[in-house]
Amino acid sequence: MEEEKYIGIDIGGTTVKLAVLTIEGEMIHKWEIPTAKEESGKSIVSDIAASITETLDALHLDRTTVTGIGAGAPGFIDQQTGYVYEAINIGWKEFDMGEELSEATGFPVWADNDANIAALGEKWLGAGKGCESMLAVTLGTGVGGGIIVNKQVINGANGTGGEIGHITVKPDSAHYCNCGRYGCLETEASATAIARKAVEMKTAGNSDYLSSIKEPTAKDVFEGYERKDEGCQSIVLDVTDQLGLALANLAVSINPEKIVIGGGVSKAGDSLLSPLKESFDAYALPRVSAVCDFSIAKLGNDAGVIGGAYLVKTKSGH
Amino acid sequence: MEEEKYIGIDIGGTTVKLAVLTIEGEMIHKWEIPTAKEESGKSIVSDIAASITETLDALHLDRTTVTGIGAGAPGFIDQQTGYVYEAINIGWKEFDMGEELSEATGFPVWADNDANIAALGEKWLGAGKGCESMLAVTLGTGVGGGIIVNKQVINGANGTGGEIGHITVKPDSAHYCNCGRYGCLETEASATAIARKAVEMKTAGNSDYLSSIKEPTAKDVFEGYERKDEGCQSIVLDVTDQLGLALANLAVSINPEKIVIGGGVSKAGDSLLSPLKESFDAYALPRVSAVCDFSIAKLGNDAGVIGGAYLVKTKSGH
Repeated sequence: MEEEKYIGIDIGGTTVKLAVLTIEGEMIHKWEIPTAKEESGKSIVSDIAASITETLDALHLDRTTVTGIGAGAPGFIDQQTGYVYEAINIGWKEFDMGEELSEATGFPVWADNDANIAALGEKWLGAGKGCESMLAVTLGTGVGGGIIVNKQVINGANGTGGEIGHITVKPDSAHYCNCGRYGCLETEASATAIARKAVEMKTAGNSDYLSSIKEPTAKDVFEGYERKDEGCQSIVLDVTDQLGLALANLAVSINPEKIVIGGGVSKAGDSLLSPLKESFDAYALPRVSAVCDFSIAKLGNDAGVIGGAYLVKTKSGH
Repeated sequence: MEEEKYIGIDIGGTTVKLAVLTIEGEMIHKWEIPTAKEESGKSIVSDIAASITETLDALHLDRTTVTGIGAGAPGFIDQQTGYVYEAINIGWKEFDMGEELSEATGFPVWADNDANIAALGEKWLGAGKGCESMLAVTLGTGVGGGIIVNKQVINGANGTGGEIGHITVKPDSAHYCNCGRYGCLETEASATAIARKAVEMKTAGNSDYLSSIKEPTAKDVFEGYERKDEGCQSIVLDVTDQLGLALANLAVSINPEKIVIGGGVSKAGDSLLSPLKESFDAYALPRVSAVCDFSIAKLGNDAGVIGGAYLVKTKSGH
């Protein structure tokens, strides 16, 4: 008998990534299709179903060996049913994606928020391999998170689990967040926030390194930090202080084995991890920091499809 | 055949509480014995075992109908093995309580931190009945916590899960915490902290109500708050502001259905919950606060033994 397989799907605002994996996590095939966002994304599900059928046929894979589909999308999603409360970038609202995708493909479907799914991917085959508990943090345009405890991701009462970008770190901040409030972690530690701080630092004339850069980015700030530019060092210490405090406060509640940092900002590597770990250790209970390692995420853009497959693995009981 | 039973144990610094419950949660019998803390608490386990044997005999309960024991103690405990890393008030350190208690009684043993066990009790039969996710907060001499997600309590990588009293809420605070750091939630929102604020308020001459009380307590502060004393109102708003921020930041990660407040301070009832909910709503994502109810704990001193029994229920697979 042919070995069972899982299909992982990562639905993004521009492309839908898909993959077929074995139950051991070997990737048999991965591919992508454009995300048809027109008319509230009404054809996305049928596009995915057609592409899966076509690809399974082309690969000569027997449909009956596929256990199910695990899908991630940016938004608030009920994990058990795959019901999408809202996924603004895709155009979905109160959309029963789980049922529609299951009907269109004939496979059972599980789904979750894209950051939660990426966390599951890193837990299965990436930087969190073997961990029972883990925090995954994505530092990109925004700040995303996925929390794993007792080997399961926290989806929450209405699919809002792991929204660590909206931890309030500066209650008196004047920086508005997309969520409608002020002083969220996202307004202090995302790539967008770091670039904003860089522009402020440059405008104030407090950074030699940034003064020569027309539109400084987070990458430039870490470059300046490594060159010991004082302005850049002060930005990195400010960002890692806020992030370290937020993660320590979460870790004292979760007591995780690992914190995995991904997203564009994580490309700074040790220039990010080293001051971050120092801040974390200062704010966390010693028992908590003693068992908590920091790592950079390993799976990059594949984390979503791998995590989707892992969701099938855990939920189907295989 | 006689129905199965669970034994719940709550080991405190003064007394050990014990109870026998049915699998439906009916309490057949509860009793307590003194905690023999002498010589690093070396006779506690044999005291418990002797008392259980004696009580089962007196009640004419068949030992073979007891599925197991669930025990809570104040400290850091590995849930799977019942290994106690440290329980300062009891005198235990690196003590394999699970194995010793199992050998002494002949029953399988599961154990966890007392606050985690109390949270499980409230989840099973108390204010959190029916919830899959819940935060339990105990506001007493200190601030304790138990977090339940996906129906399971978070024990953590080394038994430190749910230590929400050590969330840092005021990084620049001068108030020293027993954990060795400063500005913990415990130094801002425990009964001890509220009493300290009351003394400060009285000394500064800013409370008519407190001026007549020799040694004001947290209870007096809420009494003054209800009588509209300005000094007491300012203390309650300060405490609920800190607590609301810490709980909102945790809730945005956990997305719980309920937050259950217990401990001595919770006797203030709505005078605590009403300003607390207001602060929480201001700091939490609207989606998170929309589904999160606040309640006062219901089980009082029985929460521990009930939670112990529930730990057996969930862990034994019955």
